Amino acid sequence: MCSPFLILFLSSLIFSATAEASHCSSTGLPLVRKISELPQDNYGRAGLSHITVAGSFSHGMREVEVWLQTFSPGSHTPIHRHSCEEVFVVLKGSGTLYIASSSHEYPGKPQEFSIFSNSTFHIPVNDVHQVWNTNEHEDLQMLVIISRPPVKVFIYKDWFMPHTAAKLKFPYYWDEECLQAPIKDEL
Amino acid sequence: MCSPFLILFLSSLIFSATAEASHCSSTGLPLVRKISELPQDNYGRAGLSHITVAGSFSHGMREVEVWLQTFSPGSHTPIHRHSCEEVFVVLKGSGTLYIASSSHEYPGKPQEFSIFSNSTFHIPVNDVHQVWNTNEHEDLQMLVIISRPPVKVFIYKDWFMPHTAAKLKFPYYWDEECLQAPIKDEL
Repeated sequence: MCSPFLILFLSSLIFSATAEASHCSSTGLPLVRKISELPQDNYGRAGLSHITVAGSFSHGMREVEVWLQTFSPGSHTPIHRHSCEEVFVVLKGSGTLYIASSSHEYPGKPQEFSIFSNSTFHIPVNDVHQVWNTNEHEDLQMLVIISRPPVKVFIYKDWFMPHTAAKLKFPYYWDEECLQAPIKDEL
Repeated sequence: MCSPFLILFLSSLIFSATAEASHCSSTGLPLVRKISELPQDNYGRAGLSHITVAGSFSHGMREVEVWLQTFSPGSHTPIHRHSCEEVFVVLKGSGTLYIASSSHEYPGKPQEFSIFSNSTFHIPVNDVHQVWNTNEHEDLQMLVIISRPPVKVFIYKDWFMPHTAAKLKFPYYWDEECLQAPIKDEL
């Protein structure tokens, strides 16, 4: 005898396994996708909305990855660097880019640049940077393009932390579920 | 004695040389750039507006390149392939993507997909494709991201031309000025 609750439980397990598989694999995905229907999450970071528009794990990209990110007023990225190219296209809102080179022992006081709707900028490979929504009234929305996915991020506590002390965060927040899935399966 | 007209002429020569140099080199460019102030041209192709948002020649990109392209109603890309990844983000309008694999002797009848505002799609490396603005009433505007810049494009006259007969167009339209500039200097 099989209880209806057990059947329901088993069905929900099968459903979530399928959902997880499709999020972490490009198999069976439509070629043209509505961005509004792609998985969106803050991945534990207050004020962030992240959508992987074209990703290494979710869409099989090997050389570029595209994100749509929205930062609520006052929210920001960590101070970080990565060994890949990164291009930003600001779609809405405004904010501040802080950036420092990686050529000294530690980043030091960063340069500040205003960023705004319909502006673009790129981060030279390994330059230490941080993007803040410094506009109190409006979300900051950007398309972010990186090379060499999945991204490997070194995070700094402050601008005076030596580069060698920056902590590797890999897999990064939005890649965690897909990169850890195979390891879980082996346990 | 130096005529005021000669001075004016020499000044305009110096000015245009500087403008060309800055268009083909990232030296002296501001880090944050207004997209509306970047060079925009149709590069001899009716109905096209192309802006290199972040480019190999103009901004020193080595691994990714970002374009903003607008196609007027009825205009389209050639049928083509390239050995790099390509991601499209449709910002405005709608149209049709035609795509065929590169695994047979020639592309053959392509698959057709509707593309529309806030949709995204990517082209697998070397798949033969064409994007048309098939909407009679509205421009089709897209952000286009490629890996391995500058792009090396193989163009097909039709969908039944063998892959081996497709003609390499390199440098591509918007890269011509910068790639040919050093050759001109040597003459």
